[in-house]
Amino acid sequence: MAQRLIVVGGDAAGMAAASQARRRRDRSDLEIVAFERGRFTSYSACGIPYWISGLVPERDQLVARDPATFRADFDIDVRLRHEVTAIDLDRQEVVAHDLDGGGEVRERFDELVYATGAVPKQPDWADPAVRGVFGVQTLGDASALREWLDAEPAPRRAVVVGGGYIGVEMAEALIQRGLAVTLVEQADQPMSTVDPDMAALVADAMRGIGIDIRTGVEVTGLDGRDGRVSAVVTADGPLPADVVVLGLGVRPDTALAEAAGLPVGLSGGIRVDRRMRVPGVPGVWAAGDCVETLHRVSGLPVHVPLGTHANKQGRVAGINIGGGYATFPGVIGTAVTKVCELEVGRTGLRERDAAASGFEFVSVRAESTNRAGYYPGARTMTVKLIAERSSGRLLGAQIVGWSEAAKRIDTLAVALWNGMTVDEMTALDLGYAPPYAPVWDPVLIAARKAVDALHQG
Amino acid sequence: MAQRLIVVGGDAAGMAAASQARRRRDRSDLEIVAFERGRFTSYSACGIPYWISGLVPERDQLVARDPATFRADFDIDVRLRHEVTAIDLDRQEVVAHDLDGGGEVRERFDELVYATGAVPKQPDWADPAVRGVFGVQTLGDASALREWLDAEPAPRRAVVVGGGYIGVEMAEALIQRGLAVTLVEQADQPMSTVDPDMAALVADAMRGIGIDIRTGVEVTGLDGRDGRVSAVVTADGPLPADVVVLGLGVRPDTALAEAAGLPVGLSGGIRVDRRMRVPGVPGVWAAGDCVETLHRVSGLPVHVPLGTHANKQGRVAGINIGGGYATFPGVIGTAVTKVCELEVGRTGLRERDAAASGFEFVSVRAESTNRAGYYPGARTMTVKLIAERSSGRLLGAQIVGWSEAAKRIDTLAVALWNGMTVDEMTALDLGYAPPYAPVWDPVLIAARKAVDALHQG
Repeated sequence: MAQRLIVVGGDAAGMAAASQARRRRDRSDLEIVAFERGRFTSYSACGIPYWISGLVPERDQLVARDPATFRADFDIDVRLRHEVTAIDLDRQEVVAHDLDGGGEVRERFDELVYATGAVPKQPDWADPAVRGVFGVQTLGDASALREWLDAEPAPRRAVVVGGGYIGVEMAEALIQRGLAVTLVEQADQPMSTVDPDMAALVADAMRGIGIDIRTGVEVTGLDGRDGRVSAVVTADGPLPADVVVLGLGVRPDTALAEAAGLPVGLSGGIRVDRRMRVPGVPGVWAAGDCVETLHRVSGLPVHVPLGTHANKQGRVAGINIGGGYATFPGVIGTAVTKVCELEVGRTGLRERDAAASGFEFVSVRAESTNRAGYYPGARTMTVKLIAERSSGRLLGAQIVGWSEAAKRIDTLAVALWNGMTVDEMTALDLGYAPPYAPVWDPVLIAARKAVDALHQG
Repeated sequence: MAQRLIVVGGDAAGMAAASQARRRRDRSDLEIVAFERGRFTSYSACGIPYWISGLVPERDQLVARDPATFRADFDIDVRLRHEVTAIDLDRQEVVAHDLDGGGEVRERFDELVYATGAVPKQPDWADPAVRGVFGVQTLGDASALREWLDAEPAPRRAVVVGGGYIGVEMAEALIQRGLAVTLVEQADQPMSTVDPDMAALVADAMRGIGIDIRTGVEVTGLDGRDGRVSAVVTADGPLPADVVVLGLGVRPDTALAEAAGLPVGLSGGIRVDRRMRVPGVPGVWAAGDCVETLHRVSGLPVHVPLGTHANKQGRVAGINIGGGYATFPGVIGTAVTKVCELEVGRTGLRERDAAASGFEFVSVRAESTNRAGYYPGARTMTVKLIAERSSGRLLGAQIVGWSEAAKRIDTLAVALWNGMTVDEMTALDLGYAPPYAPVWDPVLIAARKAVDALHQG
């Protein structure tokens, strides 16, 4: 008799696990059922800002694979609008509610993949009676926002609360739609995923495209009129708004897991081992935005909700469920984004992370160009490196620049992944041609500067 | 009394060595004299095609630092148009001829940096009586070509002989100037620096911009009229030409070194150790296009004339002469170029190199996109990986694609440099955002495919 795999959550991690398991075990050996409470499978949440802006014309372009494809090509029984409400580890059963039909189903499992993702942090001033306030965590959220923006009379003034990746990308998207956009950030600067000196470059670019940035401002409430938002109330006074977008970050969606007794780590995410098994709970796996993972530089467990990790972790779980061997060895915090044409990349530890982890370090910032200085279109690229003082080992890197800057962080990410020292990095054999780099690549220039700083330190 | 450093050759390697030595030792400790037989110091030979095409308007933009700067800022006595004709190791003297004044000078040295660069390979059908045939190795060569192209009546038909980087880049430059361009290549394909399957993509792009490619064709001579070239003669008949550009590669310029008794290696380049010392010859260093270096993957000595290596090697020699410690640990053969908008990157061993080095290997080619598939402007990117069959270790990689493809090779170059296996690479934490990558980066997709190929193999 076939074994049965239940997947809780039908987005990147869950469906990657299901597909990989299917590649190795056919239906006679493994039945696969995936429950998803939303209306979509495997979509690109990271693409939401570009659909909101109109750059990506159709919502369905963001859906990588729909349920019909999973059924037809992978023989996976995907059940949308089904919310799993309980996991009974002793009986190896899940209970799911059909959110449309209202019925309840119980399904036995031999293997379970917990992939519920993350949920947006809700501010304490949230008010369900005031409409026009949106998260953009799911494609469902985004569809509601798009409807609000497309309605007549069209909103003209937007307030984005929170200056992380989503906040910054949504502010840009709303500017591109022609709204007046104010971004409110409680801290001193938006884009705190890079160090303040680098974030300042991003803030300048945001102001340059007309985003009104209010930093050090705490939101305390909402004003409404006829049940529609009219302003965001702050300690500094009200900010008029016809629409509000929340970008306050997310937390792992672990309610169901905790109720079932799955272990949750210090970061708030579900604990997993390198094969994505939940330790101590045979047959149960977890992957994606709901788990915590090892930060390979700090050595600490972290929660890093990103589609690229979710896909990798799901694949690893699926290979292992399928009888193969794969591991997820952790993350180093690589991320890229852009504000109009300004590109931002980061990997490893920021200065504050390095200090908090107990590292003594030097940090340098080197300005050079993305191309040979004489080549048309050459523009400034700023590379920051953070290196351990005693060993010279790279701890973190950040890049801000105008063209072909963001993905250059990968070069540094691979160096960091491999524990290279900045001295070793000065010898790296990187591609050189005038359209693509100065004869000393920006990465090498920064490495040389870091070596100098270590010798002076 | 001050010691004295003599630099033979005032381009990238020599002047980098001189500048670095000066940073650590002032004039009272070290006098520095640099002899350069040409009219320029420290220029970008790689930039020549872009000046010929007109993309870079002024020749002097290619000069990174002129002699006046070296004198004023570095206290380096640069003597242009001085050709060193002999090195006497016993007496620690060089003999140099003033090519303009005709005089001869002798200079004592304590330290000598040999940095004469490379010279173009001359075909046996070369004919000094036929004008209009040009190399583009030096800025002097390029100036002569520019003058020929700018003269009236302007040449209309160009033949480029040789399909390596310089040949391909010059063919593009001449097309951009409006000439009809034929590229003649003795082998089956141009761009043999990548494997034939990848080179075919480049050849298609070259044809796409109107370059007439003739492969498998041997040039046997030149036809001239009134002392000017009129055709390149081949086994398949004459190819009419008003101007001919030679891109037949270069060889290390070692004549002077061999006469002095410096050791030359199997590759034809001068032998050096990791600190760029010439072994067995105290006080003598060599760097740049005249030396051979270790290929870190094959373990063999190779001659790789590239400005990026020349600068690094010169810097290493200069730091060591200055009393510091630096090493040049070899190369892995990374290179990038473009043909109009098509970008090409390579690192490590090609299939033929891997076979010649005795590796058993698998190779895979993966097509994906430079951006998320739904993001506007997403275009095909082809990544090829070559991995050792037994260990899974990456041996080489090639990328061909349309936007942000070339410099992606650096990610693979750093993985290769660190001896990563393709299995390890599948876990790499690379930057992901829809404008810059699919959720599975092209590099990761290729690594996954290589892992599959290893398991099937």
